[in-house]
Amino acid sequence: MELDPRVSERIRNQKAYDLIKSAEQAAELIEDGMVLGVSGFTPSGYPKAVPLALAERAKRGDAVKVDLYSGASVGPEIDTALTEAGIIRKRLPYLTNSTIRKAINKGKVEYTDMHLSHSTQYINYGAIPKVDIAIVEALAITEDGSLIPTTAIGNSPSFIKQADKVIVELNLHQPMALEGMHDCLIMENPPNRKPINIVKADDLIGKPYMECGFEKIAAIVITDLQDGVRPLAAIDDNAKKIAQNIIKFFEGEVAAGRLTDTLLPIQSGVGSVANAVLYGLLDSEFHDLCCYTEVVQDSMLEMLKCGKAKCASTTAISPSPEMKEQFDQEAELYKGKLIFRPQEISNNPEVIRRLGIISMNTALEVDIYGNVNSTHVNGSSMMNGIGGSGDFARNGSITIFTTASLAKNGDISSIVPMVSHVDHTEHDVMVIVTEQGYADLRGCSPKERALKIINNCAHPDYREKLMDYYSRACQTSGLQTPHILEEALSWHVSFMKNGTMK
Amino acid sequence: MELDPRVSERIRNQKAYDLIKSAEQAAELIEDGMVLGVSGFTPSGYPKAVPLALAERAKRGDAVKVDLYSGASVGPEIDTALTEAGIIRKRLPYLTNSTIRKAINKGKVEYTDMHLSHSTQYINYGAIPKVDIAIVEALAITEDGSLIPTTAIGNSPSFIKQADKVIVELNLHQPMALEGMHDCLIMENPPNRKPINIVKADDLIGKPYMECGFEKIAAIVITDLQDGVRPLAAIDDNAKKIAQNIIKFFEGEVAAGRLTDTLLPIQSGVGSVANAVLYGLLDSEFHDLCCYTEVVQDSMLEMLKCGKAKCASTTAISPSPEMKEQFDQEAELYKGKLIFRPQEISNNPEVIRRLGIISMNTALEVDIYGNVNSTHVNGSSMMNGIGGSGDFARNGSITIFTTASLAKNGDISSIVPMVSHVDHTEHDVMVIVTEQGYADLRGCSPKERALKIINNCAHPDYREKLMDYYSRACQTSGLQTPHILEEALSWHVSFMKNGTMK
Repeated sequence: MELDPRVSERIRNQKAYDLIKSAEQAAELIEDGMVLGVSGFTPSGYPKAVPLALAERAKRGDAVKVDLYSGASVGPEIDTALTEAGIIRKRLPYLTNSTIRKAINKGKVEYTDMHLSHSTQYINYGAIPKVDIAIVEALAITEDGSLIPTTAIGNSPSFIKQADKVIVELNLHQPMALEGMHDCLIMENPPNRKPINIVKADDLIGKPYMECGFEKIAAIVITDLQDGVRPLAAIDDNAKKIAQNIIKFFEGEVAAGRLTDTLLPIQSGVGSVANAVLYGLLDSEFHDLCCYTEVVQDSMLEMLKCGKAKCASTTAISPSPEMKEQFDQEAELYKGKLIFRPQEISNNPEVIRRLGIISMNTALEVDIYGNVNSTHVNGSSMMNGIGGSGDFARNGSITIFTTASLAKNGDISSIVPMVSHVDHTEHDVMVIVTEQGYADLRGCSPKERALKIINNCAHPDYREKLMDYYSRACQTSGLQTPHILEEALSWHVSFMKNGTMK
Repeated sequence: MELDPRVSERIRNQKAYDLIKSAEQAAELIEDGMVLGVSGFTPSGYPKAVPLALAERAKRGDAVKVDLYSGASVGPEIDTALTEAGIIRKRLPYLTNSTIRKAINKGKVEYTDMHLSHSTQYINYGAIPKVDIAIVEALAITEDGSLIPTTAIGNSPSFIKQADKVIVELNLHQPMALEGMHDCLIMENPPNRKPINIVKADDLIGKPYMECGFEKIAAIVITDLQDGVRPLAAIDDNAKKIAQNIIKFFEGEVAAGRLTDTLLPIQSGVGSVANAVLYGLLDSEFHDLCCYTEVVQDSMLEMLKCGKAKCASTTAISPSPEMKEQFDQEAELYKGKLIFRPQEISNNPEVIRRLGIISMNTALEVDIYGNVNSTHVNGSSMMNGIGGSGDFARNGSITIFTTASLAKNGDISSIVPMVSHVDHTEHDVMVIVTEQGYADLRGCSPKERALKIINNCAHPDYREKLMDYYSRACQTSGLQTPHILEEALSWHVSFMKNGTMK
């Protein structure tokens, strides 16, 4: 096999050359019933060639069933290809891919929806079946067989540690300037766990590579494939208004002396609202910002470039295709500012609580008492999963959930009497923001919350109906959290039957 | 005023003598609209004389309305007396008292139910109205005006720091041997927060007193009053079986190599089941146990005495009246083994995650997918509040919820299709234990959980009905978490209408 000249700077020990195999040969290592742990977090830094070869193998009639663990969502080369090939028995801890989502909601794939920081613990504790083979994208293989990650770390260090065999996809497409941006550490299990000495978002505590060793590496597959990054949805009017309302809230906090104009480190979920919020900050008076998050999108990369933000700690970048191309050219610019960490560290409650992260995530629906549904449509069908939102929302200093007040052309109110599934309880939700305004729920009793949420956040088309439910509930039930249980979920039932909550 | 001779060892600066006032005089300091922060956690270590005097003052026609913050629940001298006097406008973050519970459920008192570790942050961040007067029980006042706590620390250090004035109840009844058992520290707010250097349950990181200073002390009231501790409910058959099932689970974890026979530090909620579990451990093969918890009951004190446990870190003790009497005599025995901490430290996610706490708490009801309701009867009426259960359940290494499978003589199934309120989501609940058995939900998808919970935990009288709901739901809805929303809460409605879920 003739090797690309770029290989030599990425393979730093002769031993490694003997391990080079084709994707097809590597895919042959996977046996029925195995647990696979793949690198990647969002469509970034995940293996591409071997999963595609495994799907092809199944199409040739040589099918296996495997459990598939990842950091979070990954690209279509894994979730689409392996789902279509019928290979996945169980999937965890997160997804965004529509093919596997449909398979889950049809009952063809079992899915376990986990807090992302918990997923690492489940692996390290041996509380879920162990990873047999880790398939990990790498930028380079060091002299002692350690692996330098690419654009995501996720759960890879723990997968590698636990796996019997590691398949490396050495991706020549990823820019060498990524080297040195990673900070890898695996926490010991209790009772031997030590403090995580991060007191500022950009403190380094680990190594710039993931430990592995040649004895574990069963195959090295050379690839030259792009991450399947996705274009960002355009920022619509609602997203802009939500961003403005969040900034208004921050300004109030500064005026009250609870925040300064450098804020506290920001975590921001993925999507167009999240992106709009950060673009809003880019144009604001706030300065010297920090980010301590799980995913960095275009807006945060721009903030780093122009100096609006000083640093961003993350477990992955998830740029648009244009921004990824730009990043590949100028990655050098981000050195010392952009830090990739394993998701156990990026999402760790210890660090999130200590740094006082401001957490901003998206809700599918919110109820009048401040409970948030992030995952389930009508209580039953999986949307994406909870991801890291709970890690940040529970442990941060300020927890914000955003949603447009309406969905489906106004037939759905995102503010409902009772959410059909709870991912974030009334105890964890501090601020609700819609395009209508914001409700600061901190210290409020449920009844106080109801009035703020209905008046400040619900769409005017549904305000009266919500207030009617609330008022009648106050007359018929216990007055801590007034509900009429016969009616509490009737808005969802009405939507399912009649196509509208109106 | 003639002083009890015991006062001299408890007041260590002459200045303090000038501050001695009667409870009535101290109660006069409280003005309408104020926020009061009281010491205490469970009916332990809370002020008694001043609240009673305040209630008396209201009866004389000189009423005020105040917001009342505490560590957790407190004794009847506060929650009963002040509720009956109509003084409390808002209460947080926890309660167990039936008088105030009724007032809350009638809408006469606003109640904000908080994670106990969050309550400290809300105070320190200034995210809720500030404490005007702290009323704190103390064992002694040091030379520089610092306060040595008694049988609970709770939120007192933060109340004292924030208050304009502090009223001290110097309680001569509390044993001097308590001195030296406290480890007090107030966390800085971000961005100045440092790691909490606890790597073993008994590591000391703070001071044996709470900083205050004479300039803040507005009154010192000398008292000789007992904590209103409550007798423990007898351990019934269900509690014994639940305890046996938990120990069976632990034995399985040891066999699987995930725990050793010293376990990991234990957190155990309050009540007869919790007590039964610890008594079960007392008779087991497990040894050299540690406790990192928020409340220490009789069973843990006995474990410390006999050497079954090496240490217990807590924010309060909550012994039975007999055990409290014994404790007062022999408190010396517990030195170096029993450590009282502020609840921000006892319940801190950083420490709970690092030490890998095994968390055991009680559920009011559990649904077939593993969501837990700890607080609301039929979704509306407050029972006690979430307390610290969420701090431990979210961040511990193993999270166990216990409940008897039936309530109300069998008319209520504690396992229901959908809980009427969610305090602990499916993402946080690892093991459900009833007297019927246990369901280990780790790594399970919702459908896998449903089968385990119904088969292992539900009472046989309701198993068929639960399975019928589940099977029909599987035929009609999305298959991640199958539900029939029209019926999901119908068991509760049936109980409210017909007095039974059958």
